[in-house]
Amino acid sequence: MFFIKIGLKGKDMSKRGDPIEIAESMGVIPAVTYMMLMFLLIPFIFFKYLVSFSSLSNDSQMTSNYSDQYLAVTNNRLFPHNKLSEFLSGLLSLQSITLLGLFDDLFDIRWRHKFFMPAIACVPLLIVYYVDFSVTSVVVPTFIQHKIIYGPQMISILNWAIRQGNHIVTYITGLSFSTLVTDYSVTTSDPLLLDLGIFYYAYMASISIFSPNAINILAGINGLEVGQSVVLAVIFLINDLCYLFLLSVSQAAYDLHLLSAIFIIPFIGVSLGLLKYNWYPAKVFVGDTYCYFSGMVFAVVGILGHFSKTLLIFLLPQIINFIYSAPQIFGLVPCPRHRLPRFDPESNLMHPSYALFKPRRWQAIALQILEKLHLISIKREKDTIVGFSNMTLINLFLVWFGPMKEDHLCALLLTTQFAMGLSMLCVRHTLGPWIFGYDNLSWGVK
Amino acid sequence: MFFIKIGLKGKDMSKRGDPIEIAESMGVIPAVTYMMLMFLLIPFIFFKYLVSFSSLSNDSQMTSNYSDQYLAVTNNRLFPHNKLSEFLSGLLSLQSITLLGLFDDLFDIRWRHKFFMPAIACVPLLIVYYVDFSVTSVVVPTFIQHKIIYGPQMISILNWAIRQGNHIVTYITGLSFSTLVTDYSVTTSDPLLLDLGIFYYAYMASISIFSPNAINILAGINGLEVGQSVVLAVIFLINDLCYLFLLSVSQAAYDLHLLSAIFIIPFIGVSLGLLKYNWYPAKVFVGDTYCYFSGMVFAVVGILGHFSKTLLIFLLPQIINFIYSAPQIFGLVPCPRHRLPRFDPESNLMHPSYALFKPRRWQAIALQILEKLHLISIKREKDTIVGFSNMTLINLFLVWFGPMKEDHLCALLLTTQFAMGLSMLCVRHTLGPWIFGYDNLSWGVK
Repeated sequence: MFFIKIGLKGKDMSKRGDPIEIAESMGVIPAVTYMMLMFLLIPFIFFKYLVSFSSLSNDSQMTSNYSDQYLAVTNNRLFPHNKLSEFLSGLLSLQSITLLGLFDDLFDIRWRHKFFMPAIACVPLLIVYYVDFSVTSVVVPTFIQHKIIYGPQMISILNWAIRQGNHIVTYITGLSFSTLVTDYSVTTSDPLLLDLGIFYYAYMASISIFSPNAINILAGINGLEVGQSVVLAVIFLINDLCYLFLLSVSQAAYDLHLLSAIFIIPFIGVSLGLLKYNWYPAKVFVGDTYCYFSGMVFAVVGILGHFSKTLLIFLLPQIINFIYSAPQIFGLVPCPRHRLPRFDPESNLMHPSYALFKPRRWQAIALQILEKLHLISIKREKDTIVGFSNMTLINLFLVWFGPMKEDHLCALLLTTQFAMGLSMLCVRHTLGPWIFGYDNLSWGVK
Repeated sequence: MFFIKIGLKGKDMSKRGDPIEIAESMGVIPAVTYMMLMFLLIPFIFFKYLVSFSSLSNDSQMTSNYSDQYLAVTNNRLFPHNKLSEFLSGLLSLQSITLLGLFDDLFDIRWRHKFFMPAIACVPLLIVYYVDFSVTSVVVPTFIQHKIIYGPQMISILNWAIRQGNHIVTYITGLSFSTLVTDYSVTTSDPLLLDLGIFYYAYMASISIFSPNAINILAGINGLEVGQSVVLAVIFLINDLCYLFLLSVSQAAYDLHLLSAIFIIPFIGVSLGLLKYNWYPAKVFVGDTYCYFSGMVFAVVGILGHFSKTLLIFLLPQIINFIYSAPQIFGLVPCPRHRLPRFDPESNLMHPSYALFKPRRWQAIALQILEKLHLISIKREKDTIVGFSNMTLINLFLVWFGPMKEDHLCALLLTTQFAMGLSMLCVRHTLGPWIFGYDNLSWGVK
């Protein structure tokens, strides 16, 4: 294939026989397909604002329709220009991450540089968010408002601190960061809003950085990168459908989740196409391009749909994997170059891989505690610790459930992701209202 | 460098000694820099709609400013959402062409496929143009309106034919293609407008295809690709400045040319940076990425600024080069793989290169006519034609002015481009009003 010819190739280390080279970075194909699909979708999304169905029948009808549209355009009311910019800025961010991901696959950018690539790609999204919407308020949970002692006082102090932070930023940049429209998408009576200002942008940027990287580090076995993206997308879609098919939801929430569904459905389509080739035994590798791209799709959807907190609870398995990996990533214990599970050609099974080292005293104690909690397995030689299983969710599953085939492992991880996503969905719509005093889903039904 | 390592490299055929490999496709760096610059420019472009300068002084002032802005946002009046979508769609098109250009450099897409790549990249631009503006009228020159016999009748017939074409398209797609706002940017009293409908979109797509390819085929010697882009950009900028610093121009024209200048100025910046490395003797090659990118910048500016006809007259040298190349491109006479001038290591000069073949009778006659017109030089062996100088503007200059050094050749071509651009600028603002009955520049001055 073309990709192999130009050096975009990798070796599959978990197969019998000599590793053959297969095409890497195939993720760029679904990413570009997705972009094209989204471009072509634009007229259909805004269809209802554009078309005069009866215009074919006669000319005077057509003229009057045009003059209606003309008035609508000049009054700048009917056509949702801001929705369009929202949509376009999302696409710009996705295209930026595709381009940057491709650079990464081509040039093998260093880990500490590529960690921040999504931050660059989310710039257009944040900037359009800033110039066009500027909703930077979050709802304060009711239990903080009422049930905690000094709750309201704490909120006041926090609010004051945030305002000072905003003042400083405004003083330096000349730009003001504050919610202009405070009642946007909030439908209940008088929830307490906290205007985070500039910190809300920092929060959104963190989400954009976290989401692509979280997907990128839960990877390494055939089908997992694409599989988890598909599972996540399906969970998102179920959440959206909850909103779209409940008639009594507020118009703002309906529109936002419609937008989210518009981003998610084509993504599921292109990802399933890629999964067919990436599933065990993989014929292609997806490369960082795909991981970044899919993570960015979720970030864009979460930010534009104003449900970034929901996004984070859906990404729980990725968050667990990240926290679990943290000791190795931040160098508390050694981290080998690759932390893939070890493939045993004899049995065709995957075994946990181990990081071998001579632990210091405090490291040994920490590892033994983790072993007691069944969170790692330790390799010993004559009662001395010589290594521990690499801290990834993939290895942990192998430690818990014993060696298994690569596709079984992947399926097990994906099932877990799906189950966690579904339960989080329930939690979000049962616990959410209890904590925040209202739910933008069930509010209309009450 | 990184680019050479991954195979993006080329050999400079016009230097003494063994050709050394230098990095190819360097154009992607200025393209990405440009995109980042443009993202960061967004808040500054829309600055005046966002900032309340006095907001630092006191809080009540701030609150009242916010409530003003709040009203402005809810009324959807003050903030130019449509300008923002316009801008974003331009950026999307530019980023698409960068991505596609990079693919081309990586995979060496076939000529007949890559010719249409800009058509894919201009999709977001055209679609946003469609959903957001839909101005598809052109002004009919006054001499057709009044001075030509049957002029008005011809216009009526044309108008009728266009309407039928539109009806058919509307019938098939369900979308209507017609100008909603007929008085957009037209400031004179009652010029005759012809609503081109769907054909206007075809026209814009042609411009997007033509402009990048035109720049891509006038290439091959050090510095020419970047040089001509810089020269073109400067001409565009001069045109924009004419509008921006004449006080009596209409607001619509002012805004459009301000937008154009916003696109052009950063482009000149990144291109000059690249030119430093691409000028003779070149340390980097720019690749198709840059040619497509720069062509697309002009197309975007021309389309968004509603001066696509002006764009075409500025691209006159490229058009001449294209027409001149046509016999070779369309296969009337043979076209060798490379049509670069021939480098003579002895004298360090460039000589015209020749396409060698045995002409048929009609070909020989045609070539002799062209030779009489001093448009090619013919190579003969004992009175038989065995070849002719390749039909590119570069070779033509070498035929006319004799062999010269590579940098002199490039400078000569660029000077010609600049001189032609300047004269076209004068023609546009002297002949233009005469033909169309008004000029959107000088109208206010009268």
